[in-house]
Amino acid sequence: MIKVVILGSGNVASFLFEAFHPSKNVKVVQLYNHSASSLSRFEGMVPVTTSLEDLADADVYLISVKDDAISEITKMMGAKKALVVHTSGAVPIDHLANQERRGVFYPLQTFSRNREIVNKEVPFCLEVNKPEDMTLLKQMTSEISGIPFEVSSEKRKKLHLAAVFVCNFVNHLYAIGEDICRDNDLPFEILQPLIRETTEKISDTSPFENQTGPAIRKDQSTINAHLELINSDDNKEIYQLLTRAIQTSHGKKL
Amino acid sequence: MIKVVILGSGNVASFLFEAFHPSKNVKVVQLYNHSASSLSRFEGMVPVTTSLEDLADADVYLISVKDDAISEITKMMGAKKALVVHTSGAVPIDHLANQERRGVFYPLQTFSRNREIVNKEVPFCLEVNKPEDMTLLKQMTSEISGIPFEVSSEKRKKLHLAAVFVCNFVNHLYAIGEDICRDNDLPFEILQPLIRETTEKISDTSPFENQTGPAIRKDQSTINAHLELINSDDNKEIYQLLTRAIQTSHGKKL
Repeated sequence: MIKVVILGSGNVASFLFEAFHPSKNVKVVQLYNHSASSLSRFEGMVPVTTSLEDLADADVYLISVKDDAISEITKMMGAKKALVVHTSGAVPIDHLANQERRGVFYPLQTFSRNREIVNKEVPFCLEVNKPEDMTLLKQMTSEISGIPFEVSSEKRKKLHLAAVFVCNFVNHLYAIGEDICRDNDLPFEILQPLIRETTEKISDTSPFENQTGPAIRKDQSTINAHLELINSDDNKEIYQLLTRAIQTSHGKKL
Repeated sequence: MIKVVILGSGNVASFLFEAFHPSKNVKVVQLYNHSASSLSRFEGMVPVTTSLEDLADADVYLISVKDDAISEITKMMGAKKALVVHTSGAVPIDHLANQERRGVFYPLQTFSRNREIVNKEVPFCLEVNKPEDMTLLKQMTSEISGIPFEVSSEKRKKLHLAAVFVCNFVNHLYAIGEDICRDNDLPFEILQPLIRETTEKISDTSPFENQTGPAIRKDQSTINAHLELINSDDNKEIYQLLTRAIQTSHGKKL
């Protein structure tokens, strides 16, 4: 039985708490947050505390707070004998340097409150300073059907950057599509099969090879017609820049 | 039995040919292309011709050629008694003005050769100049399990624009993610669950409401760190522009 204390109550902390809940081999023994109100929804399900001095004994402390609070929390909780890990994509393992056994347990997924991710495949980027602790993180990953990847802090930063492109920026393009539909009294649902197919395509072929559309066809008359249809300056700039980027990358590499 | 002649042999024409193939109520009676070599892979399956003067009799002529060739083809084939439709997202119905019964049969989907789309849901944007012909196009749509939407030329242009954002531009962002993985010896598969979840999220919630990431959090230290990691000038500009666009749209509307 691996005893875990989770520090934090945001989207990732909540996901991890719920994911470990049914596990028989990993038990969340306590949840910490500095604000009592954020803990109220966990009460009755798990012991909670607002004091770093009252942290329960555990095998693993999972720090799942805002990136810039990680250093502060690890210092305030003091050096532990247990393994102390954070769950951030962007923060190097060294930010936990005051801990003898430190690590990273970063779920490469997008989490929103009120949306069930449990039981979906989640890649976990794992890193430790003591090689023997990798087994522990892999065991925790497999308990929640995650897919373990050993990834250094340096590479994890790059993955986090890639995630911004393929998740956050992609989502903004979806929002632009939604806006265009709304402005024209069209249901956003009409775009969904296209959106799904665009995603499904890349599960077995390279997106670079898949590129379609007026930009790669150098169909300048359609490009010009589209630019005339766009009212928003930001959207016009996005259209121009991505069109140019597609043409440049394919001009270079084809 | 609806008899159909398909003019063209590109991705959309091929999709339509394959989609109608198993249908008992719609029969593709001929395939036209100006070049014989593009027709070779259809020979044996359907009568083919390279001459617009030899077009077979049909109830519907489906013009599925490059946008800027549609006007020329409809003139060269001459006025028909049958319904003549094109399959383009961007071309107004008026480009078929020499035909008495004209229409649009635009599948809002991305097609690549060698990739099976048949039997997946495809929204069809339908338009006709004679209201009684709408029934015919709806019947053809339902024969291939498409989802029919009546959409004017004006709105179809906007949808086509939206499709560029949510498909072509999204795909380029995937290609950037793939590049970052390749440059760092990471498997692109590690990003796939995130990509899938980002898409699945918007099947039941608005992408605008779903926005996550450093831009919307105004997490300037992560944004700066990311910008330092990006080598390509285009990618840096895309990062900056989309970050600003996310912040502007949420600043305005939240």
